Amino acid sequence: MSSAFKNCKTLMVTGASRGLGLQMVESLATGTCSPGKIIATARDPGGAAALRRLAEKFPNLHIVALDVVSQESIEKAAQEVDQLVREDGLSCLINNAGINVVANFETVTAEKMLENFHTNAVAPLMITKAFLPLLKRAAARGTGMGVHRAAVINMTSLLGSVELNWGERANSFKWYPYRTSKSALNMVTRCMAVDMEADGILCMALHPGWVRTDMGGPQAPLSAEESISSVLSVIGGLSEKDHGSFLHYTGEPLPW
Amino acid sequence: MSSAFKNCKTLMVTGASRGLGLQMVESLATGTCSPGKIIATARDPGGAAALRRLAEKFPNLHIVALDVVSQESIEKAAQEVDQLVREDGLSCLINNAGINVVANFETVTAEKMLENFHTNAVAPLMITKAFLPLLKRAAARGTGMGVHRAAVINMTSLLGSVELNWGERANSFKWYPYRTSKSALNMVTRCMAVDMEADGILCMALHPGWVRTDMGGPQAPLSAEESISSVLSVIGGLSEKDHGSFLHYTGEPLPW
Ligand SMILES: NC(=O)c1ccc[n+]([C@@H]2O[C@H](COP(=O)([O-])OP(=O)(O)OC[C@H]3O[C@@H](n4cnc5c(N)ncnc54)[C@H](OP(=O)(O)O)[C@@H]3O)[C@@H](O)[C@H]2O)c1
Ligand SMILES: NC(=O)c1ccc[n+]([C@@H]2O[C@H](COP(=O)([O-])OP(=O)(O)OC[C@H]3O[C@@H](n4cnc5c(N)ncnc54)[C@H](OP(=O)(O)O)[C@@H]3O)[C@@H](O)[C@H]2O)c1
Repeated sequence: MSSAFKNCKTLMVTGASRGLGLQMVESLATGTCSPGKIIATARDPGGAAALRRLAEKFPNLHIVALDVVSQESIEKAAQEVDQLVREDGLSCLINNAGINVVANFETVTAEKMLENFHTNAVAPLMITKAFLPLLKRAAARGTGMGVHRAAVINMTSLLGSVELNWGERANSFKWYPYRTSKSALNMVTRCMAVDMEADGILCMALHPGWVRTDMGGPQAPLSAEESISSVLSVIGGLSEKDHGSFLHYTGEPLPW
Repeated sequence: MSSAFKNCKTLMVTGASRGLGLQMVESLATGTCSPGKIIATARDPGGAAALRRLAEKFPNLHIVALDVVSQESIEKAAQEVDQLVREDGLSCLINNAGINVVANFETVTAEKMLENFHTNAVAPLMITKAFLPLLKRAAARGTGMGVHRAAVINMTSLLGSVELNWGERANSFKWYPYRTSKSALNMVTRCMAVDMEADGILCMALHPGWVRTDMGGPQAPLSAEESISSVLSVIGGLSEKDHGSFLHYTGEPLPW
């Protein structure tokens, strides 16, 4: 893992109860250069046993309740995190929580489309809006761009690339709600990058690879450790040139 | 206008009560090479006076009620259109109905995002699904690809291009719900293109230009006549090479 996180005072990950979110928190907490404060959010902290075990071991790890599709929950979490980070503000927000409402052309419904869109594209927008004062507070103290100052990372997917959804590649994963929600998230990312630039807050979209989690399934080529080791090194190394970008977990740019 | 529509037996336009939809219907009905049957749908045919006047003059123009966000209304319209087109099926479906729920980073809410997404991205998908048996029926009688056989045209926007939402261009029209809904529509278009290819149904996304309609506003450079004259010549000329594409009303490809 990159040593860049030693300059990252406060970091928050959504959807940290399991999968990539939990792995991110674990890798950051156990790493040699852990952020000053790690805020791990979970829809139901009571049910997140693995995360609670981690928090018992690492005093810089704080668990906050956050259901990403509830505006009330978002506002409550923002207040709670404000109390935790105080004058440091929030240096890095990782919008990781996501769902895959599996449906193809035959089985897709309006409800499935709306549900996936809400969790994967609208929630990262509403969360970033609510945490904007905290991100600005962190950004006000730094120069340049990156996690040493303030950054918003949206966990997107290669399946959200409209360009790559063609030919050979298009014949697997014909998931209308998921693909559409991630394309939408890519546009949200780009819109927010435009709007947060003046405040010096970096914003980009990152594809973590195809990973063995509940969502990725057992046939995926990458373990969560492998993916997150690479993901954290990309996030740690982000700078001005990556603002508004869509990157593969290897650091390569992806087409929209 | 292209003469290509003389080989287009049946064509349907959604949102034909006003703006670009109404202009399309008028240009097609009054053109020298009108499609055999033009089906103009409107959310509230009773309130669509200009459309009703046109239908009184042109016997090949049929008005059908369709509220694009109502599944019940979609299914009812599909049955009605089935009775109108019978064994010919539907040769061209133009998903034109759309809204712009104006909101920037500060004013955007989850509700505004969901509303715009539903009308602009989910509705074209649900309508195309419901009309698929009619499109397949038309496609079964032809070869090649285009409006002479069967085609689905989604009226998208250049503002839906994630790539172009950067630099100078990004500083006007910071409309989160609208931009996101059109990026989502572009992914829906591409997914449907993949799925309808085997049936010989062409599917693509078209940007009509910035046009003086209720949505485009009075400062837009193009009149509805100018835009639609170009739009219809692009649609009339579509072939295999345009399947799955995103085109400007001038016929140039746009980046996703
Ligand atoms: N795995 C892959 O191959 C892959 C590939 C590309 C992109 N991604 C993206 O990476 C991210 C993480 O994926 P993953 O593989 O770790 O998925 P996962 O194993 O299914 O875990 C999803 C996480 O999101 C949380 N979540 C879902 N809805 C939530 C809500 N309304 N409020 C709060 N939390 C919510 C879940 O919490 P609960 O435990 O409460 O349900 C869980 O912590 C997602 O955005 C996914 O789309 C994954
Ligand atoms: N004008 C531009 O500069 C421009 C640029 C790029 C793309 N576009 C796209 O081109 C398309 C047409 O735009 P326009 O300029 O003609 O817009 P407009 O003047 O505002 O007309 C919109 C049309 O969509 C209909 N509509 C909206 N919601 C509907 C629903 N739930 N059910 C049925 N019909 C519904 C409206 O019907 P009612 O009369 O019942 O409301 C009206 O006929 C849209 O998809 C728009 O996004 C326009």
